Amino acid sequence: MTLNPALDLTYTVDALVPHATHRVRRVAERAGGKGLNVAAVLHALGEPVLATGLLGGATGAVVQAKIRTPHSFTPIGGETRRTVTVVDRTDATGLWEPGPVVTDVEWAAFQANYVALVQDAEVVVLSGSLPQGLPDDAYAVLIRLARRHHCRSVLDTSGAALERGAAAGPDVVKPNAQELAALQSPTAAVVESHGPEGLIARTPQGSWRAAPPEVVTGNPTGAGDACAAALARGLRDGTPWPALLADAVALAAAAVKAPVAGEIDINHYRATRERVHVQPHG
Amino acid sequence: MTLNPALDLTYTVDALVPHATHRVRRVAERAGGKGLNVAAVLHALGEPVLATGLLGGATGAVVQAKIRTPHSFTPIGGETRRTVTVVDRTDATGLWEPGPVVTDVEWAAFQANYVALVQDAEVVVLSGSLPQGLPDDAYAVLIRLARRHHCRSVLDTSGAALERGAAAGPDVVKPNAQELAALQSPTAAVVESHGPEGLIARTPQGSWRAAPPEVVTGNPTGAGDACAAALARGLRDGTPWPALLADAVALAAAAVKAPVAGEIDINHYRATRERVHVQPHG
Repeated sequence: MTLNPALDLTYTVDALVPHATHRVRRVAERAGGKGLNVAAVLHALGEPVLATGLLGGATGAVVQAKIRTPHSFTPIGGETRRTVTVVDRTDATGLWEPGPVVTDVEWAAFQANYVALVQDAEVVVLSGSLPQGLPDDAYAVLIRLARRHHCRSVLDTSGAALERGAAAGPDVVKPNAQELAALQSPTAAVVESHGPEGLIARTPQGSWRAAPPEVVTGNPTGAGDACAAALARGLRDGTPWPALLADAVALAAAAVKAPVAGEIDINHYRATRERVHVQPHG
Repeated sequence: MTLNPALDLTYTVDALVPHATHRVRRVAERAGGKGLNVAAVLHALGEPVLATGLLGGATGAVVQAKIRTPHSFTPIGGETRRTVTVVDRTDATGLWEPGPVVTDVEWAAFQANYVALVQDAEVVVLSGSLPQGLPDDAYAVLIRLARRHHCRSVLDTSGAALERGAAAGPDVVKPNAQELAALQSPTAAVVESHGPEGLIARTPQGSWRAAPPEVVTGNPTGAGDACAAALARGLRDGTPWPALLADAVALAAAAVKAPVAGEIDINHYRATRERVHVQPHG
């Protein structure tokens, strides 16, 4: 689920020089949003998945046309945002549009669609930032609605949306290590991402550390989303935590190996998942 | 006429820092293209005008929806380009997408539409760069087609497109001072822009220099297009060169006073046009 998707534009230039004019050598356009990446990974694995969220305006229409998984988005009046990433020989420069302001009526329409979807779903993944206009407890509201309809939830966000959402008791919270300190007494499982070093999971069944067999170089964008996809699938299947974490680490590594966020190197995934080191922690 | 229009995005940020991530404070979107600016200025003056050119893809549809004048664009398969201008407290940084590659079939379709339009027009203004795929003599072809149908022409472009186009004998060529040196023995009138210092015109009827009564500060983008609009109107009306040049300088100044390219400060225009200094030159 992606409440704040984007049209991600990547511009390749020779060197970004402030206050100069640049001819862009190459333009890449993709549907951006953490929830869309989660859906794309599950779709690539052959799992039934449906992407949802909010889309609006001409940019929203472009994003929708680029989504390759089944989807059911709620239309909004505002314009879906763009992100521009300017890649030069040194590194990347990001420009993030502020995005639309969502009205109360649109938020209510989304919730109505969401309730219909979670009635048929086993797990919902709530990913990414909240657009302007939504309350900080938006994810808390959605987590409670899911639970009422016997749908489990994975929360992957940050800041106030994480803090308020985690308080509603999602089944899994996936903060990064820095965000963890802000979380007050989570009752659910917490899966902390430690970047290339892997994951630490603290669950009612125990705590584990899972590390990839080797360091993978590539594009780390989307690794966390691949991990969230693995958590959702494992939650649905009741996979024991050690096997689930091995799967999550292998999928994250396979996402790093793929050049584009939301894609995975399926061969790398298959070759890695039996070799992830999982051991009890703490 | 705009063969290479754009969706112009202006992003306001605090300070552009290479290899950092920026939250864009404000996003402005407009239909960009020198010919669209010319049409907008003539439309604001109450003159009958029709904008034409090439538009394609989702970005082309957004541009088309933003055009406020009558228009008749030829659709192309490629995506109309975007330009991103990042404005910070110091200055502006430009990122120009390469734009679509126009096919021979699309170019032929455009010419068919163009011939129908010039049959009913008195003057055509050919403005801006050529998209990829068009020959360097594209403007020359269009100038000859216009002449065959008794339609006069104003050419405002640069580089090879200017050199080859000027050779076809448009009624007025409007190069900037740097481009002038490259022009081989133009037979038509040449109106050189000298930025805030005004214009120098070399015509079969004589040469004049026209200067604004005072320096105007503001947004110089679009001043040249306002000047081209004045030239087109004067050509249609057979306005004597001194009065035509005074009008062009006043309209250019009124464009500088307006915050957005393609708009003019009509009161500034009215207050200025009687006060432009025009004197014989050379």
